[in-house]
Amino acid sequence: MPSSKVTVDRVFHALGDPTRRAIVERLSKGPTSVSRLAAPLGITLTAVVQHLQVLEESGLVRTEKLGRVRTCRIETAGLSVAGQWIADRRSMWERRLDRLGDLLAEPEESE
Amino acid sequence: MPSSKVTVDRVFHALGDPTRRAIVERLSKGPTSVSRLAAPLGITLTAVVQHLQVLEESGLVRTEKLGRVRTCRIETAGLSVAGQWIADRRSMWERRLDRLGDLLAEPEESE
Repeated sequence: MPSSKVTVDRVFHALGDPTRRAIVERLSKGPTSVSRLAAPLGITLTAVVQHLQVLEESGLVRTEKLGRVRTCRIETAGLSVAGQWIADRRSMWERRLDRLGDLLAEPEESE
Repeated sequence: MPSSKVTVDRVFHALGDPTRRAIVERLSKGPTSVSRLAAPLGITLTAVVQHLQVLEESGLVRTEKLGRVRTCRIETAGLSVAGQWIADRRSMWERRLDRLGDLLAEPEESE
């Protein structure tokens, strides 16, 4: 998945689903196979494959087939995009607070 | 909304919708009324109110009614929860990379 197609829309849509977040949590501990991912989630292999497709398209996961086993690992592009969006919102909000602070610190004119 | 009810599930579900993210983006620039929020989004007041309810329940927005006007402002609890979840995944993944690096840096035994 080229990172140019990793958009804020895709990443937050992908992370909006609890099963997909559980997959990202599991993979942040290390790579694993599709069947090992499926077992603790209590869902079918088909369902896991569908979730993995959404996660791959949003740059959160990368999969690679070697022989008969497909290995899944975390991809950093998606988490970076989501983290940056949150950081941007916070910094805009903090800049606003700073301006308000400056305004309150100014000496009153009518004294 | 007490911050104890601000969960990762609620926050990512809320941020998974593009209209709700647009509301958070708008409010990170400063507080505004419900009707001013609705205008550029091209959706009905009823739809905005429904989105605001989801955003309030996930600790991303706070609203307050003064007279006939309801003012909406950003709430930091939700963004903190989402930012922390992303930071945790990244740090787990980076610790794993560090351990791999240490392993590769160890001198080979059979020399």
